[in-house]
Amino acid sequence: MGVGSSMNRVDAWEKVTGQAKYTADLMPQNLYTAKVVHSTIGNGWVKSFDLEDALKVPGVIKIVTCFDVPDIQFPTPGHPWSVEKAHQDIKDRKLLNRRVRMYGDDIAAVIAEDEIAARRAADKIKVEYEEYPVILDPEASMKEGAPLLHEEKPGNVIAHTGFVLGDESFEEAVKEQGLTIIEKEYRTQPVQHCHIEVPVSYAYMEKGRIVIVTSTQIPHIVRRVVSQALGIPVGQIRVIKPYIGGGFGNKQDVLYEPLNAFLCTQTGGHGVRLELSREETLGCTRVRHAFTWKIKGAVREDGTLVARKYVAYSNQGAYASHAHAIAANAANIFKQLYRDEKVLESDSYTVYTNLMTGGAMRGYGIPQGDFVTECVADDLAHAVGMDPLAFRLKNCVKEGYIDPHLGIAFHSYGLKACIEKGKDYIRWEEKRKTYEKQSGPVRRGVGMAIFNYKTGVYPISLETSSCRMVLNQDGSMQLFMGATEIGQGADTVFTQMAAEVTGITEDRIHIETVQDTDTTPFDTGAYASRQTYVSGKAVKKTGELFKQRILEYAAFKLKLPKEDGPAAAAEDSGTSGKSTETTAWKMLNIKEDQVIDKASGEVLLSLAELAEEALYSLEKSVHITAETTSHCKENSFASGVCFAEVEVDMPLGRIRVLDIINVHDSGKLINPGLARAQVHGGMSMGMGYALSEELLVDGKTGRPLNANLLDYKIPTAMDTPGLHMDFVELDDPTGPFGNKALGEPPAIPVAPAIRNAVLHATGIPFDSLPLSPQKLVERFLKEGLIGGEKGAVKGGGTHV
Amino acid sequence: MGVGSSMNRVDAWEKVTGQAKYTADLMPQNLYTAKVVHSTIGNGWVKSFDLEDALKVPGVIKIVTCFDVPDIQFPTPGHPWSVEKAHQDIKDRKLLNRRVRMYGDDIAAVIAEDEIAARRAADKIKVEYEEYPVILDPEASMKEGAPLLHEEKPGNVIAHTGFVLGDESFEEAVKEQGLTIIEKEYRTQPVQHCHIEVPVSYAYMEKGRIVIVTSTQIPHIVRRVVSQALGIPVGQIRVIKPYIGGGFGNKQDVLYEPLNAFLCTQTGGHGVRLELSREETLGCTRVRHAFTWKIKGAVREDGTLVARKYVAYSNQGAYASHAHAIAANAANIFKQLYRDEKVLESDSYTVYTNLMTGGAMRGYGIPQGDFVTECVADDLAHAVGMDPLAFRLKNCVKEGYIDPHLGIAFHSYGLKACIEKGKDYIRWEEKRKTYEKQSGPVRRGVGMAIFNYKTGVYPISLETSSCRMVLNQDGSMQLFMGATEIGQGADTVFTQMAAEVTGITEDRIHIETVQDTDTTPFDTGAYASRQTYVSGKAVKKTGELFKQRILEYAAFKLKLPKEDGPAAAAEDSGTSGKSTETTAWKMLNIKEDQVIDKASGEVLLSLAELAEEALYSLEKSVHITAETTSHCKENSFASGVCFAEVEVDMPLGRIRVLDIINVHDSGKLINPGLARAQVHGGMSMGMGYALSEELLVDGKTGRPLNANLLDYKIPTAMDTPGLHMDFVELDDPTGPFGNKALGEPPAIPVAPAIRNAVLHATGIPFDSLPLSPQKLVERFLKEGLIGGEKGAVKGGGTHV
Repeated sequence: MGVGSSMNRVDAWEKVTGQAKYTADLMPQNLYTAKVVHSTIGNGWVKSFDLEDALKVPGVIKIVTCFDVPDIQFPTPGHPWSVEKAHQDIKDRKLLNRRVRMYGDDIAAVIAEDEIAARRAADKIKVEYEEYPVILDPEASMKEGAPLLHEEKPGNVIAHTGFVLGDESFEEAVKEQGLTIIEKEYRTQPVQHCHIEVPVSYAYMEKGRIVIVTSTQIPHIVRRVVSQALGIPVGQIRVIKPYIGGGFGNKQDVLYEPLNAFLCTQTGGHGVRLELSREETLGCTRVRHAFTWKIKGAVREDGTLVARKYVAYSNQGAYASHAHAIAANAANIFKQLYRDEKVLESDSYTVYTNLMTGGAMRGYGIPQGDFVTECVADDLAHAVGMDPLAFRLKNCVKEGYIDPHLGIAFHSYGLKACIEKGKDYIRWEEKRKTYEKQSGPVRRGVGMAIFNYKTGVYPISLETSSCRMVLNQDGSMQLFMGATEIGQGADTVFTQMAAEVTGITEDRIHIETVQDTDTTPFDTGAYASRQTYVSGKAVKKTGELFKQRILEYAAFKLKLPKEDGPAAAAEDSGTSGKSTETTAWKMLNIKEDQVIDKASGEVLLSLAELAEEALYSLEKSVHITAETTSHCKENSFASGVCFAEVEVDMPLGRIRVLDIINVHDSGKLINPGLARAQVHGGMSMGMGYALSEELLVDGKTGRPLNANLLDYKIPTAMDTPGLHMDFVELDDPTGPFGNKALGEPPAIPVAPAIRNAVLHATGIPFDSLPLSPQKLVERFLKEGLIGGEKGAVKGGGTHV
Repeated sequence: MGVGSSMNRVDAWEKVTGQAKYTADLMPQNLYTAKVVHSTIGNGWVKSFDLEDALKVPGVIKIVTCFDVPDIQFPTPGHPWSVEKAHQDIKDRKLLNRRVRMYGDDIAAVIAEDEIAARRAADKIKVEYEEYPVILDPEASMKEGAPLLHEEKPGNVIAHTGFVLGDESFEEAVKEQGLTIIEKEYRTQPVQHCHIEVPVSYAYMEKGRIVIVTSTQIPHIVRRVVSQALGIPVGQIRVIKPYIGGGFGNKQDVLYEPLNAFLCTQTGGHGVRLELSREETLGCTRVRHAFTWKIKGAVREDGTLVARKYVAYSNQGAYASHAHAIAANAANIFKQLYRDEKVLESDSYTVYTNLMTGGAMRGYGIPQGDFVTECVADDLAHAVGMDPLAFRLKNCVKEGYIDPHLGIAFHSYGLKACIEKGKDYIRWEEKRKTYEKQSGPVRRGVGMAIFNYKTGVYPISLETSSCRMVLNQDGSMQLFMGATEIGQGADTVFTQMAAEVTGITEDRIHIETVQDTDTTPFDTGAYASRQTYVSGKAVKKTGELFKQRILEYAAFKLKLPKEDGPAAAAEDSGTSGKSTETTAWKMLNIKEDQVIDKASGEVLLSLAELAEEALYSLEKSVHITAETTSHCKENSFASGVCFAEVEVDMPLGRIRVLDIINVHDSGKLINPGLARAQVHGGMSMGMGYALSEELLVDGKTGRPLNANLLDYKIPTAMDTPGLHMDFVELDDPTGPFGNKALGEPPAIPVAPAIRNAVLHATGIPFDSLPLSPQKLVERFLKEGLIGGEKGAVKGGGTHV
């Protein structure tokens, strides 16, 4: 089958039958259970604990408080470590914090024989606090006199960066005659990832080392951060990642593994489990950063985008986590998606507040930034009476675009083709016209949004990945990746890639799902839509070497004539890293598990025969393996578009998505079936972001108001229309198999496309997410589109 | 510390605190339990089962009988597979057998929700048999008309081999005048290994593959045999070996893993555990082969050994297992230990009987063969009135000896020095004289026995081993061996070896204890005293390559001047197998975790810095690892001696070992402390073999009579005197670190040394083991040394 086929997931059977083992399934018997004690204030200090009653609870083993943990601050984001101090992540939290910076901050932990004892004891702990006012908004947090959340960051500003692209300032540029200028403020809300499996881990000690089994996207980074947090060497820590039930970026943060590891050391190495509740997951882990954008845009009558200028405030919440990387990435989409003829001024602040901590979430700032660029695009087009699709085609970046700061280019450019395909599907022109003049309470519209997205993090950060292959006695292969399967299908596409490169068929490639920092190769993990591209290169490089070693053995076994290579080392050719003795292997190839003559295609030997001989030959026994690192120093833009058709029931404030399509330019698809599944999931996530999802907190205390899946609304199947998609499959020359990013993109353009469809339907340019009924009704009332007499509906109509 | 130091075991803390995880500790919850149903006849056929009552037992999941298993015969011994059909192991059993060949043969299995249900159901299964007479003795089994146990082996003889070393026959040779000729029959008994942890495993399915976690010495061989037994490819099977509680060769057989794997497939992949009881372990696994030896020896008056001739019958029991390899190895000791001036005639039969199956046990035939050579030596010396030590020095093989068939030599020869040391310790001459003329019922004597022992199985069979090393971010190392820690200290000595070769200190080397056929490199396992020698070579070879790769990176980081190597490939030098770009690394070395200038010793860089840079460098990121195979085509003899001083209480038939010493020539000791522990254990095992251990069966049915540790007597601490030992540490040029075999040797010479001391004390040359009170009293009565009137003790005396 190889690359390009829609083979079934390698883990399909496992997952459908429930045999797949997740962290909780692997827990041995007799683990202790830990429960974190969370602060019940949003800003202040822990002054003291009264543990007396708690310690009396039968089954309590130990209670550890913020007074007991190492005085070490550590970072949590899932970034490759930087050997340059200036680029290292911000170390701003301890295992447990005396300084409370959010409601639900981690201040103590109970270790008990079971869950019930742990919860009972946690409830009986009394805490005395010193309390400060709670600040939830970045601009308020930056004001003079606001309490500092972290002493080392004056004004609570983590970072402030910007750039100007153009030769003059925005103010200069807009002196031009005849420009239409808009000035707007957009807001995006904090949302949560809502992965099915909550953060869960268990830790135990083995030969003086700490072993942590955890649901994470980034086992090697967890290892490093636990080392930093506990102040012990990396080699003393082992992290094992079983199957995981989703992550979406939340598990690209090192959440509770360091605390779990520490608690294990506090029991003399007895195993301790730490599983968050859904409430803790929503209220105490990470969220997608809320942003405020103050933006001006100027457009000519002909639709030329002349200039934009904005200030963005990224609400970081209590701890730095991924910090300014999100705002910096969000800024990229402005320059990378549209060309301002004269100038683009960008200015971004990332600010501590007492909100939940912002972290990585699918799209990493781009869903927010794209919402704004795509609102602005429609609002500017609207302002000059231009078709928004035409506006985009006129102003969006063209083939040959290169990011002026990062140097990333489209090595394959499919954006326009995507727009064409999506336009045809949704019947854009026809519907734009049909819905032009509607009256009545229920109106329809079509909208669109485009995006592009870089693949992996190069050159901002390191991209490195390793792969290991081992030949089994039956000629099948064990495939080991440091890259992680987190539900997205990575194991399946790596299997296809390995088959493509080596000629061993997929059914005979056994990929290891469990990443174990002791045994599987190094890779930074699942994030940044990087794995098929970056880790795919490692598969390709390793596969080529592995195949060479197999063919070298085949040449030996087949007694092909030797031609002396540059460094003859007969016995070592299989595994020692020395050069091969002969180049005879180049006359051979592998096809469908058989060694063949490259020229004639004749089958010479089965891999099963070869493998058995290689292991057991009395003349030359060699265990054929290969392991290489691919250091990736390339990048390419993926891109795409979403078109949505909506029906807005204005009196009910209800938006029905009637039809929706994403069209993606992600290069060659490794597995079209999995690509479709990836897009499905992303579109559904985008719809939740657009319509219903928002983490709400009490304004006085910062206490989460809807940290549960009853009150926090993610879309259900009933809320979701048929999700359509298409692809523009260009062969990207930098991708290992012509491929580029697809993991995060599908979630990006959905919300602005829906917002723009609502604009088309109702004429109202909403400026914040989600487009909730409350928000819509208030605005429609204000605009006089509904209401008037006492709740009566202007225009009437039937609403189901 | 490195090689030669007595560092603490790397698993000492784990094992002392109980944190070390053995198979049973790792079992997840909700496994099913399987119980094997054993035959209650010793020879015959299963005609039918009545399962009705058994299936009614609540909790029974399934009952599988010998009518339900694949019609595939498979082998069980832990040998490297041979690609030559003639050398492949004998395939003579099925997962469950209709043809019953021993009492307790495996005829069915119950799978139930728990142990109790499984046992209850097993008890309720009714079996109808066709029954044949039971044959327990090889010579009886070879007689015409005896029922055939395996159709394909006429006369029940598995193999019959022999050799003649000399130019004339024994009969010709003994025509010489003045020879003293003895003719004797010696017997050794079946004994069991009595490892602490019984055979235990559990199996489950994962992605269509079978995973077996098991207490084994040979995970890769288990993988292959399960594949053969179930008729599925090797790649579909994964075997994981946690810590194991001893094996001593019993777990060098593939015991119940294939059945466990099969039962798992019969539940749709649900996990199934199979743990033997102690009774099953003693009665249904493997034993050390019982032998009968009929031997003649001829000696001149001056003590020259002129000729020997023997026929040996190895009692294989019901199934082939290691089969004739044991008898063939036992034959080796005759030629390898003494030189017969004229001729040695060797003739060995391995014969099926209805006894428990003979398998590998520490010494692999040599404890039996050495018992006979050393009895014969003393008996010949006794016959001509010569000091047995002098007899040995005169006739034993000398430096320069090369086995005429195998080509194995002493590359270091310490046998004579061992004898010297032991003789001095025991004060041989003084005591031989003192105890010369004793009377009374309690008499003392000193005896000795020598041995030699080849290291590993080359050239009889394949010796291959792989090793993998990975550099952690903190400059520490993960070390992976296919070789297995089975309690003997392998992990500790491999750690020392890796430290010695790489310059990374032992505290920063993290060896993986768990062998996993998916992740750890290939190695055939723990047996044949091979690991420090054969697998040690893999550590050395891999360590050298690993160090080179580290130093290559150091040269890059330190910007050492490049000298173009034969095949410049800058980026690949770390892991791709290409040749290095430069030879600058040769100017560097590693000492105590620091990169130093080789010439000056100046510290240039810590490995921690280097490792962090290597992983995270934006210029050159490389995950430094190394993995190589060492195909070992060398061997060397280890040797040694045991001296024992005993007191024989003849009326009680009781032997007290007053003093005992083993002196070993095992080359350089990697870890003297562990070497001592190894010798301790072996001496204790040898004492059990000498004095008390014997598996007894009912002569009519073959039913084990003492398959429990109450009636089967292994020595306790109370039975054991101070165990003394010494070493002759010659540097063996073929050993990776000057070392050679030590695992099995300590158990070999103890029994004959004690037997010879008893001969010295009493004048009675016992001809079988064990030297049990019953046997001694009968013989002393017969010889008139005790008894006479009605149980009265001749000579009297006080016995405590």
